Amino acid sequence: MLSACYTGARTIDVRATRTPPPGPEEVQIRVAYTGICGTDLHIFHGAMDGRVTRPAVIGHEMSGTIAQVGADVTGRHVGEPVTVMPLAWDGDCPACRAGHEHICQNLDFVGIDSPGALQTHWNVRADLLVSLPSGLPLQHAALVEPVAVAVHDVRRSRLTAGDKAVVFGGGPIGVLISVVARHTGAEVLLVEPDPARRATAGALGFPTADPAAVDLVQQVDQWTDRAGADVVFEVSGAPKAVLAATGVARVRGTVVVVAIHPQPRKVDLQRVFWRELRLVGARVYQRADFERAVELLAGDVIPADGIISRVTPLTEVASAFTALESGEAMKVLVDCGGDVR
Amino acid sequence: MLSACYTGARTIDVRATRTPPPGPEEVQIRVAYTGICGTDLHIFHGAMDGRVTRPAVIGHEMSGTIAQVGADVTGRHVGEPVTVMPLAWDGDCPACRAGHEHICQNLDFVGIDSPGALQTHWNVRADLLVSLPSGLPLQHAALVEPVAVAVHDVRRSRLTAGDKAVVFGGGPIGVLISVVARHTGAEVLLVEPDPARRATAGALGFPTADPAAVDLVQQVDQWTDRAGADVVFEVSGAPKAVLAATGVARVRGTVVVVAIHPQPRKVDLQRVFWRELRLVGARVYQRADFERAVELLAGDVIPADGIISRVTPLTEVASAFTALESGEAMKVLVDCGGDVR
Repeated sequence: MLSACYTGARTIDVRATRTPPPGPEEVQIRVAYTGICGTDLHIFHGAMDGRVTRPAVIGHEMSGTIAQVGADVTGRHVGEPVTVMPLAWDGDCPACRAGHEHICQNLDFVGIDSPGALQTHWNVRADLLVSLPSGLPLQHAALVEPVAVAVHDVRRSRLTAGDKAVVFGGGPIGVLISVVARHTGAEVLLVEPDPARRATAGALGFPTADPAAVDLVQQVDQWTDRAGADVVFEVSGAPKAVLAATGVARVRGTVVVVAIHPQPRKVDLQRVFWRELRLVGARVYQRADFERAVELLAGDVIPADGIISRVTPLTEVASAFTALESGEAMKVLVDCGGDVR
Repeated sequence: MLSACYTGARTIDVRATRTPPPGPEEVQIRVAYTGICGTDLHIFHGAMDGRVTRPAVIGHEMSGTIAQVGADVTGRHVGEPVTVMPLAWDGDCPACRAGHEHICQNLDFVGIDSPGALQTHWNVRADLLVSLPSGLPLQHAALVEPVAVAVHDVRRSRLTAGDKAVVFGGGPIGVLISVVARHTGAEVLLVEPDPARRATAGALGFPTADPAAVDLVQQVDQWTDRAGADVVFEVSGAPKAVLAATGVARVRGTVVVVAIHPQPRKVDLQRVFWRELRLVGARVYQRADFERAVELLAGDVIPADGIISRVTPLTEVASAFTALESGEAMKVLVDCGGDVR
């Protein structure tokens, strides 16, 4: 088997090893495609070396088929198409006991905190598997994880049909949130400074705005007949977007904090108070979000081909990272060789 | 009649005039007591001269009895004890049409945007009256408005019995929130740097913490068995408290933004994301909050005598403001002469 091993900043080697069999309660997946996300890119840049134990096989957005079934696993069979919900919780911390296992206080995020999917064969806990319908192309299925993020974010927002939503940030998650929000019945305005990303979003049918070129508060006020947006998604990570997000929200509107903000950001708390806004954090997903993501992909709601901009063989994995950091690509998949259907 | 007229920074004169009769749909209230709040103090300092039309009769926390009933007013009679819910909305803006009249986008806050209660006689719209039970002392009834703020803040927090709550800020609103939260069944920790205010809160039975002397996150972690606080109220307006508020909140916990923060504040959005926190703004009150506040005062739930630190005659109104700004007083009432029962 081949594994992509991250060994330190900007270094990722493909290594050939013998394929270990799955342990008890595990299956071995023949990996088809693994997507690279912003967090993977952070790891590649060395920014998460304090958290990642090297050499590390990363990757947590994936699709594949079961190659072997380990001992004590029931209900799974060889050849079955699957993806993995990459969250392993301890079940015992206060968050888990309160029913919020997906944000367990000792969460093992599989593919970051433990080995992930950037390899041809992956032994993984069987209880993390999510079944895929046979008609869903495995390339599209590699998007289940980011689509689940978007489903979770929209659910946390409590957006409903007829709402008007503003999405700050036109990367893969921003675009997927826009798609899920539109499918829920909302009208969406996507705010993104990069013209190429605006063009991609525009091709998917979304009106876009360049925050450097327009007065967003005024534009949203006009669009909403002075009310403001029902829901705002902050997916950009940009300090200016944080201030703008509260500025465009209606009385009692919701701002969902999706992006990672490594430093505390200035927030217009006067506006939060004055309009009784609700700011909610949204992190990863719950099982229901993952299963809904599979449905949305299988139902062709997600324009997967418009979002996947490049598929790179595992042997050239480093070029997948450099393509992503150049900003040219939307979603880059690594072909791990298991799409043999 | 006598009126306290704010004419400019640090200047408030008591003027004698003829008493005008109430207009149609108005009543004339013989004012008993008017409380001075932090916003009134801001006005006294000249900080709100852009909003307040001078000379201004301010004051929006009050109690009194009906002295005259104007034309076209039904269901009100002379001698009836009342207070005023000082919010006049336009009924037509997007917020009002969505049912959020209390944060009308063109709200007239009576006592700030239009004449208030720092006078012996006050002609006011009859539909703003809230009836008081005859057994409720009028001094206590002057606290209905700030108690309604606390009721609203606790309602916005969705706090329930058994919750653990941290309140940042031990002024009148922080103490009243603590009282209402405790009455709802929560355990409360009050965080306040000023020793005199900690002593007042301690005398009312609340455990307190000095944020300069303890590691709050550690203390709350121990108190909550590593979970964090269910609800946090930010009532201090202090930048450090904003950062600490997210630090002590549990996974999916709530931070209520009660204080006025005139400048954008640094907020730990990483923590908001990581713990899926909910930050909600809470502004003024709704009718149900006001009526609940009357019930809580009439039921002796609110330790009114422990909160009212001084009662000053209207003729010496300026000294009420200077007592408040010295930080010695908790709640200062102005005796407007109408407590003749």
